[in-house]
Amino acid sequence: VSAAHVPRQAALVAVGTELLADGRPDTNAVSIGRLLSARGVATGLRIQVPDDEEEIARMLSQAAERFPLVIVTGGLGPTVDDVTREAVARAFGAPLSEDPAALAALEAGMRARGRALTPAGRRQALVPRGAEILPNPVGTAPGLCLGTASGARVFLLPGVPHEMQRMMVEQVLTRIEEMLGAPLAWRGLKAAGLTEVQVQEHLIDLLASSPSASLTLLASPMEISIILRASEPREADRLARRAAERLGEAVFTDDLESGLESAAGRILAVRGETLAVAESCTGGLLGELITRVPGSSQWFLQGWVTYSNASKVSALGIAADLVEREGAVSEATAELMAQAARRLSGASHSLSISGIAGPDGGTPEKPVGLVFIGLATGDACVVTRHLFPGDRETVRLFAARTALNRLRLALDGRGAP
Amino acid sequence: VSAAHVPRQAALVAVGTELLADGRPDTNAVSIGRLLSARGVATGLRIQVPDDEEEIARMLSQAAERFPLVIVTGGLGPTVDDVTREAVARAFGAPLSEDPAALAALEAGMRARGRALTPAGRRQALVPRGAEILPNPVGTAPGLCLGTASGARVFLLPGVPHEMQRMMVEQVLTRIEEMLGAPLAWRGLKAAGLTEVQVQEHLIDLLASSPSASLTLLASPMEISIILRASEPREADRLARRAAERLGEAVFTDDLESGLESAAGRILAVRGETLAVAESCTGGLLGELITRVPGSSQWFLQGWVTYSNASKVSALGIAADLVEREGAVSEATAELMAQAARRLSGASHSLSISGIAGPDGGTPEKPVGLVFIGLATGDACVVTRHLFPGDRETVRLFAARTALNRLRLALDGRGAP
Repeated sequence: VSAAHVPRQAALVAVGTELLADGRPDTNAVSIGRLLSARGVATGLRIQVPDDEEEIARMLSQAAERFPLVIVTGGLGPTVDDVTREAVARAFGAPLSEDPAALAALEAGMRARGRALTPAGRRQALVPRGAEILPNPVGTAPGLCLGTASGARVFLLPGVPHEMQRMMVEQVLTRIEEMLGAPLAWRGLKAAGLTEVQVQEHLIDLLASSPSASLTLLASPMEISIILRASEPREADRLARRAAERLGEAVFTDDLESGLESAAGRILAVRGETLAVAESCTGGLLGELITRVPGSSQWFLQGWVTYSNASKVSALGIAADLVEREGAVSEATAELMAQAARRLSGASHSLSISGIAGPDGGTPEKPVGLVFIGLATGDACVVTRHLFPGDRETVRLFAARTALNRLRLALDGRGAP
Repeated sequence: VSAAHVPRQAALVAVGTELLADGRPDTNAVSIGRLLSARGVATGLRIQVPDDEEEIARMLSQAAERFPLVIVTGGLGPTVDDVTREAVARAFGAPLSEDPAALAALEAGMRARGRALTPAGRRQALVPRGAEILPNPVGTAPGLCLGTASGARVFLLPGVPHEMQRMMVEQVLTRIEEMLGAPLAWRGLKAAGLTEVQVQEHLIDLLASSPSASLTLLASPMEISIILRASEPREADRLARRAAERLGEAVFTDDLESGLESAAGRILAVRGETLAVAESCTGGLLGELITRVPGSSQWFLQGWVTYSNASKVSALGIAADLVEREGAVSEATAELMAQAARRLSGASHSLSISGIAGPDGGTPEKPVGLVFIGLATGDACVVTRHLFPGDRETVRLFAARTALNRLRLALDGRGAP
């Protein structure tokens, strides 16, 4: 029996009473939707259901009747409210049995943590008849993949975002690409320092010349992801090349998973140069972004989080009367922070950040969002002044990424100093 | 005909191809869910559908069969892809006709903006048979409210968030409160250092004694959120009190939005004490978590991100031969990092973190996930050794939160030193 599926569309089902009870958005659907969209698969339906076996089963069987692809997140853990496995068994008439290999993997995982597998934890080795096990490299609950009588493919993934994402990228997307046959071609670019509207204005007539082409933009503070789709790979290549020409130095990578910290780090690593940072309002975020990159120890030496005024004086040797006179959030302080970080660390380059992240602490002269960013190389140091929009978290992310973007442009010979 | 409705539960349906195509979360469902939850109405199902009349109609009639309350947002505007009205007419057999009062209101609204009502705009005056019109005080498209044959009440609201919210608060909630009786109650707790399974084992028989009670657990590295629901507020209070007694020192707040950094910071602020940090593998994450808290400048002085071995020597004065002999990831190095951070900053307390976050850099003796955490107060310093599971990001988050948890316990007089 094969149902009339909506072609190249997926249904996304999130399981979890907590999503509904706490009024939390389904962020897994957002990330899965983007990953699918970049591969030419549209999301045709999104559903969030509580941990209720009957309700999950009802929604799953409906979704699988109408969509060729159903991705379910959550409800695969060890606790009694994790009933997604049981719901799948009920929805698709695929009774559960304990899988010896899954059980062995669970036991090994618990042993590695110095713990024993409990009877509750053992439920995670239950597998619906005919399902394939998707190993979970970063958590306990494995994922599952099964075909339904209506011809749909159903993927079950843990609800923990980083586990879901890793399994989605490493295991699910390749299976989906095989399933769909010739995928639409797509190319990604990431750009810094432009708004969605600016990118669209630069690229819109590029699309007009290519009727099958489409453009998706995903914006976050300072970084924008650009996805260009076309009916075949050569056309996608051509579009990406032309888009990169038009956007110029704003483009920093063609890897959508990669951030400004990696772009700057790649250049430093190739040149054998190094970086140190001194940050105030970002409180460690700049260092944290940099050290998210595995291998960053090759080019990142150290950082100072000089949050109090006294620490700017004691740790970086900035004159107390200067901080007093100019203020901690000032061009002069940012300049001395960058110079001290470079000198004390012996790094080739240094970045400094001092600003007002809010929500309090703003004045008419120095409002919330005001940030000074210093970049020192050798004896040269240039400070730029910025007024970033948004809440505390957004201002801090803008500040840290803008610092990294200034470094990247300078290393490319395109920016100061 | 009256269907078997799930009592006191609502289904939320968001209409809009853009939500699905751009991978945007349904933020209207989040705000509606919270408004309903505060009135004891649980969200039993959330659905996001594209602007597809047939799909919307299918989902609406299903939702109204099973839930006494259905709230639909989006698809009420003037453009051709706004088909929610048509879908409602189809789902509930309530043909559309133009309502003279709605038409007059639309015309008046357009006149006030100096514009004429277009034929497309006129569609917004179409009303399903038997529906009540909910005036839109801040936009053009009116909302609608209708009863279904299955006994459900369906509310239709514009998708524009501020229009939806205003109409929800001013018009929909009062109608819902009339429809319903006494609200459900819930209480939240957050605990550190226990797994989901451990929390469940501690609390499961508590629930057995209270038939209407339920438990939801949300786990993330080191922090677990516990939500207890009961049929009335006094019972929810009693459950939360008993749960907190059983979990003891693991519980650090009853505010689900608050993290370990706030718990530690609150105690420091009250005592007028201060904190400094020295971190290696977390690269700034510990400082970043701490300074996410607005007002943390009251108790957080400064941090050192000593990523390279040389920086541990130059910035913190640790003897080079000790780092050489014991290794940067060692009890001795973590102890000296914490002591130097406290001494150099003059803070009351300091935390240090040194470990191997991976994916590379592990050895059989010092595997990925091995982290030493130091806590110094006065001249006392205690270092603990941990082996955290997961990928680079997870190990780093475990390390930073474990450090904060050790500080919190020590400040509470429950942990070392």
